[in-house]
Amino acid sequence: MPHIALDPDEAGIRSLFSFRPETARPLSELAEVLLRGPSTLTRGERELIASHVSSLNDCYYCMSSHAAFAAAQLPEGMALVQRVRADPQTAPVSDKMRALLAIAAAVQEGGLKVTPEHVEAARAAGATDAEIHDSVLIAAAFCMYNRYVDGLATVAPEDPGFYAMGAQAIVEYGYTAQPEHGA
Amino acid sequence: MPHIALDPDEAGIRSLFSFRPETARPLSELAEVLLRGPSTLTRGERELIASHVSSLNDCYYCMSSHAAFAAAQLPEGMALVQRVRADPQTAPVSDKMRALLAIAAAVQEGGLKVTPEHVEAARAAGATDAEIHDSVLIAAAFCMYNRYVDGLATVAPEDPGFYAMGAQAIVEYGYTAQPEHGA
Repeated sequence: MPHIALDPDEAGIRSLFSFRPETARPLSELAEVLLRGPSTLTRGERELIASHVSSLNDCYYCMSSHAAFAAAQLPEGMALVQRVRADPQTAPVSDKMRALLAIAAAVQEGGLKVTPEHVEAARAAGATDAEIHDSVLIAAAFCMYNRYVDGLATVAPEDPGFYAMGAQAIVEYGYTAQPEHGA
Repeated sequence: MPHIALDPDEAGIRSLFSFRPETARPLSELAEVLLRGPSTLTRGERELIASHVSSLNDCYYCMSSHAAFAAAQLPEGMALVQRVRADPQTAPVSDKMRALLAIAAAVQEGGLKVTPEHVEAARAAGATDAEIHDSVLIAAAFCMYNRYVDGLATVAPEDPGFYAMGAQAIVEYGYTAQPEHGA
């Protein structure tokens, strides 16, 4: 049961967005810019980082949501998302994505855990400063979203169909305009 | 030295805001709504939560910034900020603030660390759902800002005067319109 009085017809971060629309706006805009705005990382790659960090933070709602959003936007689908969740070192991703996922995992532990070696490895694999920046900020942002969703004990549906339906809405409408479900 | 090429004349989150204005906007708006928007918690109390979480995350730049912003907006000034940093259990704050600081400290560890007992204690001390919500989100947001600032190894000036000057700008202009320094 949520720690505060939330709309029982809503789940996860959506129930928090309804509770506090003033903070929902910048939180949604941040997700839209970071995960769907112009970038040399694909939307699928960015959602993969988001779902990986959410998994490291044990946030079931965010992990399920962004795994579905990643799967819907990656050619390799859910199979790749699950391989990354199990072990990013052996998952069939590019060297650049592997290095960016390692940076994201360091950020999940703490900002000071990111070393010059992490960044060198990413750069050697072809990552740009903008890609390194965005990977750090996506990871940091999900350390926020995950704590927000679980810190208030929001509801996380078990049915995978819930998250797959949310993915359709996100892919079509994005984070700031979708009619229901999301983030 | 920062992990990516940032303006050497800027420090901390300001250097990141200049690097990526698209994400700076929602990040600044979130801080403005959470820390300065309408609330039954004073601006000083909210900055106290922000500086406490930044201290727990060992983020020198954010801790110094928000300690200065809290001190500038609390009747008790920096003395109270330092008491809270040393030990929130014995610091001279209200029972409500002590319970909200405990919730924030739990969020800093992880969303799932917030227990019904934490929330009960806050409610027994008079905290509203909105205050509990905002305390969780402030703590979660600083788990993001702190990781963003340190994950890219931004510069953190040692001179306390730098942060005191930043505080003047924040108190006067806020997070979305200040001419320099901040967050």
